[in-house]
Amino acid sequence: MGISIGDTLKLNIAGNQFIGILMPRFESADENHLVIKLKNGYNIGIELTKIESITKIMQEPNQTVSNMPSSSSSPIPEPPIKRSEGEDKSIPKIALISTGGTIASKVDYRTGGVHAAISASELYASIPELGSYASVDTEVLLNEYSENLKPEHWSLIANKIAEKVKSGRYQGIIISHGTDTMHYTASALSFALQNLPIPVVLVGAQRSSDRPSSDAALNLIGGIVFAIKSNYSGVFVAMHASSSDDVIACHVGTRVRKNHTSRRDAFESIDVAPVALIKGNVVEMQHSEIKLQKRASSSERFVVKPDYDSKVILLKYHPGFDPELINHAIVDAGYKVIILEGTGLGHIGRESFPQIQKAIESGLMVFMTSQCVWGRVRMNVYDTGRDLLNIGVIPLSDMIAETAIVKAMWVLANSKDSESAKKIMQENIANEISSAIPIS
Amino acid sequence: MGISIGDTLKLNIAGNQFIGILMPRFESADENHLVIKLKNGYNIGIELTKIESITKIMQEPNQTVSNMPSSSSSPIPEPPIKRSEGEDKSIPKIALISTGGTIASKVDYRTGGVHAAISASELYASIPELGSYASVDTEVLLNEYSENLKPEHWSLIANKIAEKVKSGRYQGIIISHGTDTMHYTASALSFALQNLPIPVVLVGAQRSSDRPSSDAALNLIGGIVFAIKSNYSGVFVAMHASSSDDVIACHVGTRVRKNHTSRRDAFESIDVAPVALIKGNVVEMQHSEIKLQKRASSSERFVVKPDYDSKVILLKYHPGFDPELINHAIVDAGYKVIILEGTGLGHIGRESFPQIQKAIESGLMVFMTSQCVWGRVRMNVYDTGRDLLNIGVIPLSDMIAETAIVKAMWVLANSKDSESAKKIMQENIANEISSAIPIS
Repeated sequence: MGISIGDTLKLNIAGNQFIGILMPRFESADENHLVIKLKNGYNIGIELTKIESITKIMQEPNQTVSNMPSSSSSPIPEPPIKRSEGEDKSIPKIALISTGGTIASKVDYRTGGVHAAISASELYASIPELGSYASVDTEVLLNEYSENLKPEHWSLIANKIAEKVKSGRYQGIIISHGTDTMHYTASALSFALQNLPIPVVLVGAQRSSDRPSSDAALNLIGGIVFAIKSNYSGVFVAMHASSSDDVIACHVGTRVRKNHTSRRDAFESIDVAPVALIKGNVVEMQHSEIKLQKRASSSERFVVKPDYDSKVILLKYHPGFDPELINHAIVDAGYKVIILEGTGLGHIGRESFPQIQKAIESGLMVFMTSQCVWGRVRMNVYDTGRDLLNIGVIPLSDMIAETAIVKAMWVLANSKDSESAKKIMQENIANEISSAIPIS
Repeated sequence: MGISIGDTLKLNIAGNQFIGILMPRFESADENHLVIKLKNGYNIGIELTKIESITKIMQEPNQTVSNMPSSSSSPIPEPPIKRSEGEDKSIPKIALISTGGTIASKVDYRTGGVHAAISASELYASIPELGSYASVDTEVLLNEYSENLKPEHWSLIANKIAEKVKSGRYQGIIISHGTDTMHYTASALSFALQNLPIPVVLVGAQRSSDRPSSDAALNLIGGIVFAIKSNYSGVFVAMHASSSDDVIACHVGTRVRKNHTSRRDAFESIDVAPVALIKGNVVEMQHSEIKLQKRASSSERFVVKPDYDSKVILLKYHPGFDPELINHAIVDAGYKVIILEGTGLGHIGRESFPQIQKAIESGLMVFMTSQCVWGRVRMNVYDTGRDLLNIGVIPLSDMIAETAIVKAMWVLANSKDSESAKKIMQENIANEISSAIPIS
């Protein structure tokens, strides 16, 4: 029909007119649909048989983007796409490492379901405006929904980031990631990558990038803007700050949580403000209680500790909780750490005290967090807390439970004995414990 | 010294002057301290030896409040305190059932810790303004921190409420309760007490009632105002709506969660607005998606189903989760229900699928909620969710995880077989599932 990817088209469908840019059709997509990106940034899929007429309004100026085959689920290095022939030294350089998830997935128009399938370069290609912010080297490391990621994957991602950091070629690194466990991975990287010279920003999407109302493009652009412009280094998560499509919030990796199943602003910093808001290409640092490290010109002080030991059990307490479950953790399963998600200020029912005591006597470390999500564990206020302290339960202040699980896995693999493990668990390594006295 | 409980005193201490009402000294209190309630509503404890002078400014008009002994931890019925000789029929009548917790506790001035110790009548006596709202019959049913409450206690509380409801004497019932598991008890009562003719309102306090900044009085008054004035019946939780001391929010029992360890406005309705705000003695109903039952003049339709079966295990999924834990639930412990707290829209890692399948084949019921707290489980969007649906995992829509645990315990004890149990779990019994389509 004489039209190509990137052309601006006018389509007439059942009396309605749609104007938008023709998007690449991915390998696994339905052949009976076109996908066009509307002016408001939304992508829509249109059934070919329903299209009454197509008019080409404008031709894509630089037709270099091809329909790349989808990547398989194993790590496949992929050649970076160059947007222009000569490499422009004045444009900041970013590494984009894709791990999968909705941000790299698309709707199957036959079933309405979403598949993890597109590659980092396709993602880059589908958001042409990225080129005006940075020169982006893309690489597919994994292609997994994040609920399938395990501590081994954290190690893989940490090592890949370390490689990119040490190359000295990048002003920042973007990790595209499924949102389900993005905060767990952000915590894991926060502990593994110490004294990072540049920012590492995880971005995801709550709606797939070839879908109306996708948040993929803005999150990715927000993450890149922060990665380029921020004076600070560390591990961050960049996602929508509200349900409107204009402001991105940048959160510290250890203090962020996915607090909604579907909203675009599902990610929230817990007990602190986000460290920055990104509006267009402006980074507004917030008055946050968080102390950040400055960006550094060399990776001299950069340390990588990418190992995790998953012998950690999370027990969330509730009325009717069976203390026998603690015995299982001690006897059958070889766990080394129990993370309790207690009630309120850090409590569990008295009936479980003997088993907790037994766990500690058996050499397990038992740490307390709160299922309240917000606020600080304070175990010296009530009898229950004081008794648990006496038994040897260790309170983790305002560390969020999800971060505590990850930190325990990291500490187990990175401390010489249980005394030093307990000590490191209570130290602030990566802003997972805030020193602020809570307003009472 | 010629002074009595309820007298207004002026005390000189180290150059400072305090004016306030002398409060009852509780049995377990330090004999070396007086407690006075200041005009701003705060109570302070003052060491006797530090008091330079005491002047009686005003005598308590009706000295009927005695220093009641503290209750032990077993249920002890306690005669209601009459505030006046003749019973005034024009004043609404409320039953206040005390179960313990911070609202019925006090600071130990020697250690700074808090003990569960005061009775419902002491609580009533320490907030004299309650008398202007209602005539309150008080009864101590339990004296436990709520982290120690178990399903047996829910049964006890449900039966006690049923007794009060059936007496036909009350316009509403207040349950004073520890905040740690107040939302679990509220859920449990919501399922057990069907077609309640009058409101049952749980109230707690984040700061003990004999302490500066206590929220006990306002929460209790707010709960009583709602219990008297609301046109609606059901089970509710009344707590501070913000950290300022003026507005009380009234939440539906199945849709409320303690979301902060220490803030006075820790309790929040999840995915819906609170049903009412209480400002002074005015109840402002909110435009809530919740459908409430109207107050009824008789208890004809009232049904009590106070039994629970606690063979329910909660498994919160996280990266590094050991699928072996599911085997434990199947083989060793005789659980009948697994409540999964999955990630995002209702996912767990693929590695656990075989064990989940085995659990279902072994006759366990497996239900999915989300650890996001907010939002709705939707398992038909991604491969992971669809595969779990195919295995037989049952999604629980926007039921919050804590409510799902409680409902499962109630359903197990109140359904004839597992098919009817699964059906009831997915039906909306007490506003635990909202029918609203979420804004996407």
